[in-house]
Amino acid sequence: GFAKIDYHREIRKGFPEVIFCGGKTPQQVKEIAFNMYKNGSDVLGTRASHEHFEAVRELLEKAVYYETARIISIRNTPPRKTKGIIGVVAAGTSDLAVAEEAAVTAELMGNTVKRFYDVGVAGLHRLLDKIEEIRECRVIIAIAGMEGALPTVLGGLVGSPIIAVPTSVGYGANFHGLSALLAMLNSCASGVSVVNIDNGFGAAYSASLINKIGEEGK
Amino acid sequence: GFAKIDYHREIRKGFPEVIFCGGKTPQQVKEIAFNMYKNGSDVLGTRASHEHFEAVRELLEKAVYYETARIISIRNTPPRKTKGIIGVVAAGTSDLAVAEEAAVTAELMGNTVKRFYDVGVAGLHRLLDKIEEIRECRVIIAIAGMEGALPTVLGGLVGSPIIAVPTSVGYGANFHGLSALLAMLNSCASGVSVVNIDNGFGAAYSASLINKIGEEGK
Amino acid sequence: GFAKIDYHREIRKGFPEVIFCGGKTPQQVKEIAFNMYKNGSDVLGTRASHEHFEAVRELLEKAVYYETARIISIRNTPPRKTKGIIGVVAAGTSDLAVAEEAAVTAELMGNTVKRFYDVGVAGLHRLLDKIEEIRECRVIIAIAGMEGALPTVLGGLVGSPIIAVPTSVGYGANFHGLSALLAMLNSCASGVSVVNIDNGFGAAYSASLINKIGEEGK
Amino acid sequence: GFAKIDYHREIRKGFPEVIFCGGKTPQQVKEIAFNMYKNGSDVLGTRASHEHFEAVRELLEKAVYYETARIISIRNTPPRKTKGIIGVVAAGTSDLAVAEEAAVTAELMGNTVKRFYDVGVAGLHRLLDKIEEIRECRVIIAIAGMEGALPTVLGGLVGSPIIAVPTSVGYGANFHGLSALLAMLNSCASGVSVVNIDNGFGAAYSASLINKIGEEGK
Amino acid sequence: GFAKIDYHREIRKGFPEVIFCGGKTPQQVKEIAFNMYKNGSDVLGTRASHEHFEAVRELLEKAVYYETARIISIRNTPPRKTKGIIGVVAAGTSDLAVAEEAAVTAELMGNTVKRFYDVGVAGLHRLLDKIEEIRECRVIIAIAGMEGALPTVLGGLVGSPIIAVPTSVGYGANFHGLSALLAMLNSCASGVSVVNIDNGFGAAYSASLINKIGEEGK
Amino acid sequence: GFAKIDYHREIRKGFPEVIFCGGKTPQQVKEIAFNMYKNGSDVLGTRASHEHFEAVRELLEKAVYYETARIISIRNTPPRKTKGIIGVVAAGTSDLAVAEEAAVTAELMGNTVKRFYDVGVAGLHRLLDKIEEIRECRVIIAIAGMEGALPTVLGGLVGSPIIAVPTSVGYGANFHGLSALLAMLNSCASGVSVVNIDNGFGAAYSASLINKIGEEGK
Amino acid sequence: GFAKIDYHREIRKGFPEVIFCGGKTPQQVKEIAFNMYKNGSDVLGTRASHEHFEAVRELLEKAVYYETARIISIRNTPPRKTKGIIGVVAAGTSDLAVAEEAAVTAELMGNTVKRFYDVGVAGLHRLLDKIEEIRECRVIIAIAGMEGALPTVLGGLVGSPIIAVPTSVGYGANFHGLSALLAMLNSCASGVSVVNIDNGFGAAYSASLINKIGEEGK
Amino acid sequence: GFAKIDYHREIRKGFPEVIFCGGKTPQQVKEIAFNMYKNGSDVLGTRASHEHFEAVRELLEKAVYYETARIISIRNTPPRKTKGIIGVVAAGTSDLAVAEEAAVTAELMGNTVKRFYDVGVAGLHRLLDKIEEIRECRVIIAIAGMEGALPTVLGGLVGSPIIAVPTSVGYGANFHGLSALLAMLNSCASGVSVVNIDNGFGAAYSASLINKIGEEGK
Ligand SMILES: Nc1ncnc2c1ncn2[C@@H]1O[C@H](COP(=O)(O)O)[C@@H](O)[C@H]1O
Ligand SMILES: Nc1ncnc2c1ncn2[C@@H]1O[C@H](COP(=O)(O)O)[C@@H](O)[C@H]1O
Ligand SMILES: Nc1ncnc2c1ncn2[C@@H]1O[C@H](COP(=O)(O)O)[C@@H](O)[C@H]1O
Ligand SMILES: Nc1ncnc2c1ncn2[C@@H]1O[C@H](COP(=O)(O)O)[C@@H](O)[C@H]1O
Ligand SMILES: [Mg+2]
Ligand SMILES: [Mg+2]
Ligand SMILES: [Mg+2]
Ligand SMILES: [Mg+2]
Ligand SMILES: [Mg+2]
Ligand SMILES: [Mg+2]
Ligand SMILES: [Mg+2]
Ligand SMILES: [Mg+2]
Repeated sequence: GFAKIDYHREIRKGFPEVIFCGGKTPQQVKEIAFNMYKNGSDVLGTRASHEHFEAVRELLEKAVYYETARIISIRNTPPRKTKGIIGVVAAGTSDLAVAEEAAVTAELMGNTVKRFYDVGVAGLHRLLDKIEEIRECRVIIAIAGMEGALPTVLGGLVGSPIIAVPTSVGYGANFHGLSALLAMLNSCASGVSVVNIDNGFGAAYSASLINKIGEEGK
Repeated sequence: GFAKIDYHREIRKGFPEVIFCGGKTPQQVKEIAFNMYKNGSDVLGTRASHEHFEAVRELLEKAVYYETARIISIRNTPPRKTKGIIGVVAAGTSDLAVAEEAAVTAELMGNTVKRFYDVGVAGLHRLLDKIEEIRECRVIIAIAGMEGALPTVLGGLVGSPIIAVPTSVGYGANFHGLSALLAMLNSCASGVSVVNIDNGFGAAYSASLINKIGEEGK
Repeated sequence: GFAKIDYHREIRKGFPEVIFCGGKTPQQVKEIAFNMYKNGSDVLGTRASHEHFEAVRELLEKAVYYETARIISIRNTPPRKTKGIIGVVAAGTSDLAVAEEAAVTAELMGNTVKRFYDVGVAGLHRLLDKIEEIRECRVIIAIAGMEGALPTVLGGLVGSPIIAVPTSVGYGANFHGLSALLAMLNSCASGVSVVNIDNGFGAAYSASLINKIGEEGK
Repeated sequence: GFAKIDYHREIRKGFPEVIFCGGKTPQQVKEIAFNMYKNGSDVLGTRASHEHFEAVRELLEKAVYYETARIISIRNTPPRKTKGIIGVVAAGTSDLAVAEEAAVTAELMGNTVKRFYDVGVAGLHRLLDKIEEIRECRVIIAIAGMEGALPTVLGGLVGSPIIAVPTSVGYGANFHGLSALLAMLNSCASGVSVVNIDNGFGAAYSASLINKIGEEGK
Repeated sequence: GFAKIDYHREIRKGFPEVIFCGGKTPQQVKEIAFNMYKNGSDVLGTRASHEHFEAVRELLEKAVYYETARIISIRNTPPRKTKGIIGVVAAGTSDLAVAEEAAVTAELMGNTVKRFYDVGVAGLHRLLDKIEEIRECRVIIAIAGMEGALPTVLGGLVGSPIIAVPTSVGYGANFHGLSALLAMLNSCASGVSVVNIDNGFGAAYSASLINKIGEEGK
Repeated sequence: GFAKIDYHREIRKGFPEVIFCGGKTPQQVKEIAFNMYKNGSDVLGTRASHEHFEAVRELLEKAVYYETARIISIRNTPPRKTKGIIGVVAAGTSDLAVAEEAAVTAELMGNTVKRFYDVGVAGLHRLLDKIEEIRECRVIIAIAGMEGALPTVLGGLVGSPIIAVPTSVGYGANFHGLSALLAMLNSCASGVSVVNIDNGFGAAYSASLINKIGEEGK
Repeated sequence: GFAKIDYHREIRKGFPEVIFCGGKTPQQVKEIAFNMYKNGSDVLGTRASHEHFEAVRELLEKAVYYETARIISIRNTPPRKTKGIIGVVAAGTSDLAVAEEAAVTAELMGNTVKRFYDVGVAGLHRLLDKIEEIRECRVIIAIAGMEGALPTVLGGLVGSPIIAVPTSVGYGANFHGLSALLAMLNSCASGVSVVNIDNGFGAAYSASLINKIGEEGK
Repeated sequence: GFAKIDYHREIRKGFPEVIFCGGKTPQQVKEIAFNMYKNGSDVLGTRASHEHFEAVRELLEKAVYYETARIISIRNTPPRKTKGIIGVVAAGTSDLAVAEEAAVTAELMGNTVKRFYDVGVAGLHRLLDKIEEIRECRVIIAIAGMEGALPTVLGGLVGSPIIAVPTSVGYGANFHGLSALLAMLNSCASGVSVVNIDNGFGAAYSASLINKIGEEGK
């Protein structure tokens, strides 16, 4: 067929291939999902529209759709939950879709997740109020658009590794997320690494690999 | 001659033309400075090297050189001092040259200036320790390179107008100040406006016009 | 809820948090507006569509919609008017939406505003005809797209601080406002600081903070 | 040899090939200049350093060097002068080198040239004082760095075609002339066309072709 | 009203203000056109849609619409025709809209125009077949997208001044016309100046000013 | 003084402030290093030249200089070594300086480090030969310039989190590291996060925070 | 008419002009196709929509439409097939349209083509499984979006020339294909040359010229 | 050691690894060259300075230095010469270094090479004079800076595959070769593929792989 699913990935990475529904037709997603499910894999589809979900549900009734996160999930294996926590910290209301993509992906990969939303640095007290709770997280995903200052401020306040996600939220000279991306790459705080603009999925994946180290000592 | 000094500027703007020594030879700067001084103007030269200063001092003994700020000054009029304060807040040690260009320009334009240096957001307590003092300033010049988060954090903490100055401090994906510039233009805090990368002079000029409003009610 | 309104902001900045309706659903805007209004705040929503307004008006009958400015306003406090004037100067007919966003925001923040529209520098006499009136303004917001020359020409003619707003008006090598943005940041005139492309709101906010200095001496 | 001089160009374009000394060694320039001179051509070398000139003068004693313009000239034909005037209008003192490259090239191509220097728009009266004289020019070369507003303001004041030359004068967000280049390409005034950053030579060449139309009716 | 028409422009530039219909509503264009027509001006509207035209025709029956050129014209004065010719040379079929914007504008400004279309350099013989006819034009407008080589090849073949118009035709690394724009600005041929991407109008305006020099000797 | 050392950082982040010697004078570095050392901190200086080191050694004899890594180190505390390994994998010989900055920083922060150098993907067997050894590392730092493919290929082969470091190695369209940076941000492999161009230090810092999780279960 | 078909091209290049349907109306494409067919040429139209095809089929019943490849073909000459193989290797499912544009174009130009799809480097074994078969191809077209690593990895594994095609597949910092384009231009593997983003057609054309060398020894 | 030479490359690619001397010390180059030579490989070093060559010659007397090409060569195997010709066509005198890097690399890889220099399109007759000779080449390397039009014009005139090399020759809006690079990627001629800016080596490598197909039928 048109797609060669990488069934070996689960062995190498501890998690099966994830379907990026972005440029695919509902029919294509449905087919890939069905093959993976039959094969015994957990199925995770990101950037999924309602149409993608409807197509998948025709064949797979247990499929679940996370609307804000734009994620489809079908489980073959029982859910797990880590002891260590991944904190998902988001600056503004408009970063919600990216934040949920990160949080839901992390949960579906077996992690315990805590959400800290709308705590952007222009109202610093909102962040400081939560800082003790955030400090208890083993890994932090920090999400912000516009000037992208949140990961830097967090980086100065906590000792856990931070995965920063720039979002395309903003207009004009934010150039579709470039301002936040550059800001995060140039963070004067240490312990911050960065993923692609709006890539909540990628941040959750990295955070999950890190979080698992704590579980198992690896 | 090669230069047409805009003597009328003092009347329109309240301050005479300023010499940008940047692309000029010592001989050119000396000539312009001498003509302006003879004409009764205060003389201010920015981006001045030692060579520029030596050339000017040959003719004008009272010339003063501010080394870190790279500024030459020759006064014809007695110094003034505003009641209102301009706060110059800088993120890191490497932003010193830009910060001093701003502070010295503002002082030479007759303003009372307070300096708050090396208070970048990666060690937030340093900024919070000074915040009451900063709040008392009528206008704030906020200077930062790299991710340029300082003006945004300040903008969430104080009620005075902020002039943000991105600096070219950094490397790689800071693209000579672009990261800080974009971050400041996209600040999620309100009351922040921005000048060119490394333009301490321009920030001081704007801040001075604003500060004078408070003196005179205008 | 999904949003953490920063009620403390009014104390820090003299004005409550403003709702950026841009990426939000009508339902979200309605909820936030209602909570703020109940809390006693004045409510200001920018980048609001007709749909946003209809949703808000269902709960809050006194809501007012400024169509060209794309602004929703609901007042809890009586309107004020400063003695000092903010001048809103715009280059072309196509800059109207940004100019009105600036003018209406400034008015709703209690400022007296004068509008000078379609006075771009390609027909200089239109600007020179108004220059005496513009000189009387305490602060000036200068708005232009394309080559963005207006703030520079104004900066050479008046002594008040200028907040420059580049607009995305134009095509081709204007790259969605980049040409005007860079031109304004590199202005050879002094006393000009810049906000984001199309950010009439931000310019009005800064201008309002400055204008208030004159009222109160601060 | 390494270079194939296009001797036919004079017939096609009315002026022989011009040597861009930029990336060439003194030895290469000397050889090309000598061959062209022997062939009866007028020789024009731009972006020439002192070293280039010294090498050329060894073989060709009549060679003349224009220092500010960085031009070498050796004439085989008697100088001409058009009746129509090319006006070279430059914004600041730092644009001198580019302005002289334009002015000297135009003169060596047989045009009558008038210079209007340091008349940038931040001190508009300097430009308005000269405007009647500028209006009498058949073609105008308008040179500016930083925000590049001069050609736009001129374009609103005169009826002659304008060739705009952005210069790399400035720093920070001028990105080596990009700000002025974009501003000129987006000029809201009509009758303005643009050449490469710092390309005084190219502007003079176009202006000369245009000026000759007026001489000969062509 | 919302628009301040620059009626003085005809005196300064020899042609009245032109309406850029781009960002305007049909109602706005109709009003401006009507006022200009009543005032005795010729009316020219560029980037006009069918809707713009329908609105204008309601009030002004003699309005003419040039579909490919997207131009509205209403004449108050009798048409003229220059003796000198403006040649409009376009590389590909997809550049037609820009080419017609240039050709029709030039004709409406009173110029005699010759069109040479689909003569791009990838089939050089098509251009060489026409070159004698092109050489007879007093000014040449050269239009091309993609790699934008046409003005350079023409510049090596003819002695008339060339106004180059980059178009946004292409995809991928043409970045909406950037490739053609940069190519034209860096042309190794002389006598080429450049206008904004897709700006057929601006090229025609410059070409018309140049062509008139030949008529009148000016 | 000019610098406000953030002594509190060690408590928050587990490691004291690090001196970026980049824009600082030898005298400034010496002073800061001395103060920190006296205060009981371990001292780490990155981007240090020979001159920086000589200045520091005058006061602090135990200072050690890592030449290729451009790092100065002075220890107050006894060295530790983690059980978990950080793998530093570099593509080419020219990436050595960045790789050593990462490796030495990680070692000085108490980590066990393994180096895998010159194993770029253009000779895949070199990487595949080492892959079992690389798989045993708890965290991987993957360093590459030019097309930056190494982290992606690694990401498909191993299950540990990867911190990718783009280097400025290359020329032309690598635009000083932009090509590698964008490639890494867009990696089709999962578990890859990215730091600034040439930022070996930042990668080591993040990797160290992650590696410590495994030691302590945190 | 509006189009000047370059009938001579077949003689110069061995293949007639190809119609880029992209910016053209169905009516324009139909007319050009009809004229070419009548003239005895094979007709190839790329970037063709269903509408384009419907229009063409009205006149030319034998027209064939390749849906995924977006290609229209009408043959006048009998099909040929080379002995040498062009390998079309594509990284992901989303690169299918570009891959088919390349494969179908190559086939219609008379080449034998083998497809290797969804063999991206994040699951390296999929590529290694096919490598012997790929090595037997005389020329390779390597297609990838996102980080564009495929041609580099292939370049290290095979001895045939590689034409790399970056695709616009991805989001955020891929900037519509820029990341893959830059990666391919900076490939550390040798024997890789690059065509425009999404330009499957251009890659096939170059590959076909190369493949024919092997047939004929040329 | 610091370098892992890929001795296997000769088997995979038909040519041993090539030393990029660019970022390496003379000592490093000397060591790598010596090891490769001892191992029986032909040695080729690109971007080599005089210092690199002096270091190599100390150990390897037969080393040859090609000055303009900046190439070091030491042969272990007897030179070969293909029957098919690689044509190296360069636009201007300033492209010489890149052209020689291409020509010498191709020769050292065993190809027969013909040079066609200084035949840029601004003097088209120079190219047309040579076109029959160029048509006889099996592969063409086309080198140009500035507007990069040469490969497009060639692509319309010849039937052989063309490898285009943009050079960084130019200034201002050529942005270090970007203008030529984009022009070549967007060529409206077919059969053109592109390598990195100034990458004469890479073009020669691809051309050599293609030329060998003709020798052996492969
Ligand atoms: N939201 C996402 N962002 C980036 N990459 C993703 C996302 N979702 C899935 N992927 C990756 O995309 C790859 C699938 O690409 P494809 O072969 O085109 O389906 C998988 O390897 C995933 O790891
Ligand atoms: N450091 C500076 N940055 C930006 N502009 C400056 C600076 N110093 C002086 N200027 C302005 O530069 C102008 C002088 O330009 P020029 O005619 O080239 O000497 C004056 O109008 C000043 O207001
Ligand atoms: N197609 C066009 N491209 C660029 N500028 C134009 C165009 N058509 C009209 N203009 C100019 O746009 C200006 C009108 O701007 P506005 O005040 O926004 O209507 C006039 O001065 C015209 O010279
Ligand atoms: N002039 C050049 N331009 C681009 N790549 C080159 C050049 N010369 C050699 N190379 C490649 O650079 C690689 C060596 O990289 P490194 O391991 O850093 O020495 C080899 O694989 C060569 O194929
Ligand atoms: Mg909020
Ligand atoms: Mg510090
Ligand atoms: Mg107007
Ligand atoms: Mg001046
Ligand atoms: Mg055509
Ligand atoms: Mg190597
Ligand atoms: Mg796949
Ligand atoms: Mg030449």
